[in-house]
Amino acid sequence: MEELKVTPWEVSGELNEASYSKLVKKFGVELITSKLLERIEKIAKGKLHPFLSKKIFFAHRDLNLILDDYENGKSFYLYTGRGPSGKMHIGHLLPFTFTKWLQDTFDVHLLIQITDDEKYLIKSTRTKKEIEHVAEENILDILSLGFDPKKTHIIKDYDNAKELYYYATDVAKHTTMSTIKAVFGVTDSDNIGKVFFPSMQIVPSFLLSAISGKNLRCLIPYAIDQDPYFRISRDVLPKLGYYKPSSIISKFLPALQGNSGKMSSSVEESAIFLDDSEQTVKKKLMKYAFSGGRDTLEEQRKYGANPDIDFSFNVYSFIENDERKVQSVYDDYKSGKLLSGEMKALAADSINLFLNQLRQNREKVKNHLSEYMFNPNDFVGHRM
Amino acid sequence: MEELKVTPWEVSGELNEASYSKLVKKFGVELITSKLLERIEKIAKGKLHPFLSKKIFFAHRDLNLILDDYENGKSFYLYTGRGPSGKMHIGHLLPFTFTKWLQDTFDVHLLIQITDDEKYLIKSTRTKKEIEHVAEENILDILSLGFDPKKTHIIKDYDNAKELYYYATDVAKHTTMSTIKAVFGVTDSDNIGKVFFPSMQIVPSFLLSAISGKNLRCLIPYAIDQDPYFRISRDVLPKLGYYKPSSIISKFLPALQGNSGKMSSSVEESAIFLDDSEQTVKKKLMKYAFSGGRDTLEEQRKYGANPDIDFSFNVYSFIENDERKVQSVYDDYKSGKLLSGEMKALAADSINLFLNQLRQNREKVKNHLSEYMFNPNDFVGHRM
Repeated sequence: MEELKVTPWEVSGELNEASYSKLVKKFGVELITSKLLERIEKIAKGKLHPFLSKKIFFAHRDLNLILDDYENGKSFYLYTGRGPSGKMHIGHLLPFTFTKWLQDTFDVHLLIQITDDEKYLIKSTRTKKEIEHVAEENILDILSLGFDPKKTHIIKDYDNAKELYYYATDVAKHTTMSTIKAVFGVTDSDNIGKVFFPSMQIVPSFLLSAISGKNLRCLIPYAIDQDPYFRISRDVLPKLGYYKPSSIISKFLPALQGNSGKMSSSVEESAIFLDDSEQTVKKKLMKYAFSGGRDTLEEQRKYGANPDIDFSFNVYSFIENDERKVQSVYDDYKSGKLLSGEMKALAADSINLFLNQLRQNREKVKNHLSEYMFNPNDFVGHRM
Repeated sequence: MEELKVTPWEVSGELNEASYSKLVKKFGVELITSKLLERIEKIAKGKLHPFLSKKIFFAHRDLNLILDDYENGKSFYLYTGRGPSGKMHIGHLLPFTFTKWLQDTFDVHLLIQITDDEKYLIKSTRTKKEIEHVAEENILDILSLGFDPKKTHIIKDYDNAKELYYYATDVAKHTTMSTIKAVFGVTDSDNIGKVFFPSMQIVPSFLLSAISGKNLRCLIPYAIDQDPYFRISRDVLPKLGYYKPSSIISKFLPALQGNSGKMSSSVEESAIFLDDSEQTVKKKLMKYAFSGGRDTLEEQRKYGANPDIDFSFNVYSFIENDERKVQSVYDDYKSGKLLSGEMKALAADSINLFLNQLRQNREKVKNHLSEYMFNPNDFVGHRM
């Protein structure tokens, strides 16, 4: 069996329920209990995001403290990010739909860090200019989900280096090379930018507290490979007088070909890109999407499909807002009434509708991009 | 014999002519030849700075290429710096008088980097706010020497982190942890800010080329303990398409008590601080200054003193602009005409005159400090 390796820069090995359990244990995170889900559901007025009910977001750290604060009328903020490594596919974007749901549900500020410096420092053959271009495209893709410009703040590491570096030295001062080696597996042959970069990624987890002078909790939604950053963060932040950040942690979204591993942008067929044409989306689903259906039409009619492992059904369920529709498709597919090809066609239509909507929003966002850019002055002196 | 250790963060062991020769060999720098001095003297219209004629600045890298460029009508720029570790003494300031002489002689831009981040990251128990205060005082001290505001640009690392970090990642990308360990002697128990910091210190050696788009040589005057930074710089800059920086390298200025080691701000009596009163200056010289005179009045009259190892004479010679006066004091002291106490009194008067002048300039500079602050826009698009 291939050894499981999960760091922010490398994910290898089979990812299945057993390996996720291993990671939970290894990283020391907690599973999201039904009690926690109930608390969230109550705040969300009965409507739980499918990423929660389907346990895509399955683990956490100190999520309860965030809910405590919220229930006691104290605010918190959200922080998430994107490494601009290339064009975005649906697997990249869907976690942002969840973050948007959190923002809308709790009505809180959100920092989105674009780590252009990381992409330059680590494993990249791209020039800074090329990375800048990717970053700008990615930002438009993310914002096309309809984030609130008043409460959503894009941090581009290079553009905001003045603020980030200032606070990154606080993190760095409390983080030894040994820690970075142990947590990230870097070695002496790695470059010193890679060594320092975790300091830059940790800053947003206390930035609004540092700038505003208000000590606020921060909730960070991320995929489990990013956990090492926030383990360091939880160690360092109390030393600086801030709360440990809380987190809500997801599995990787399945690739088109199957349920394991991340959707990968390096394998063109394993992902649906945001700029794929309607025809391409249809073709990719038909040709590559892992199906939970049976091998023959007869068996499918007789035994029904397994929607839970079916790529098309899953993506459909993440995109479709009408829960009753999703439930009825689930039932039909499971009972054998709906065939695999029909499920794929349904998903393709749904994805294409979603992508078309994004493209329209994207054009609108372009014209007021500056409103979304992080400005420290917005937070100086308790203005939150 | 105590082992000689010279890094930017630690100088220990006896420093004498033999150990300087060792360092020259170990660091791979070249001695400044009389031929090079002649070239400089010609450009300086016959007036060589005493730090050159007395071989305080005694070594270099590629100084000849700087002179070639200058003689061919091509500009270069100067870069030096100060770590704001505490209040400044004369031993800190005198190298800046030499840098000013270089600037005036060659009529070139000068970057002065104030490494507030370094002082926070390394060995400091001071808060950032305290370091900021020290930095501001140090900047006023330096500028009171009368630098040209149009061609002198103060870079404070935290204030200019946007520009510095952007280019520091270029340096970092080409610098491994192994290199930093080998060159600086850092270990895995050091913090990752200390590991990354050399990238920040190297940036000014190509910053004006990077911003202006003109490839300019940079000449860096520094004391020999800073050499490790620029060895890395010489390795990395060609990979980024810039010239290797040139350097002109000094010994440490003697402490009051003797000719070896650095003037130290940690031993109050070993240095004359810029805010010492006239009485304190006099007292320190009388009580602590290492003398090249004889043990008794009779011997002094008979054999004369050795001015070359006399702290008071040396400082006097660095400060007094009238070369003939210096020569006549040298002759009188050497011949026995001038006594040790008289030499000390002469030096005290000269130092106090110098310090008073600085204090007056300091008040004037305060009012237009902003003119000296580095602004990248001054250099964008060949505006040099």
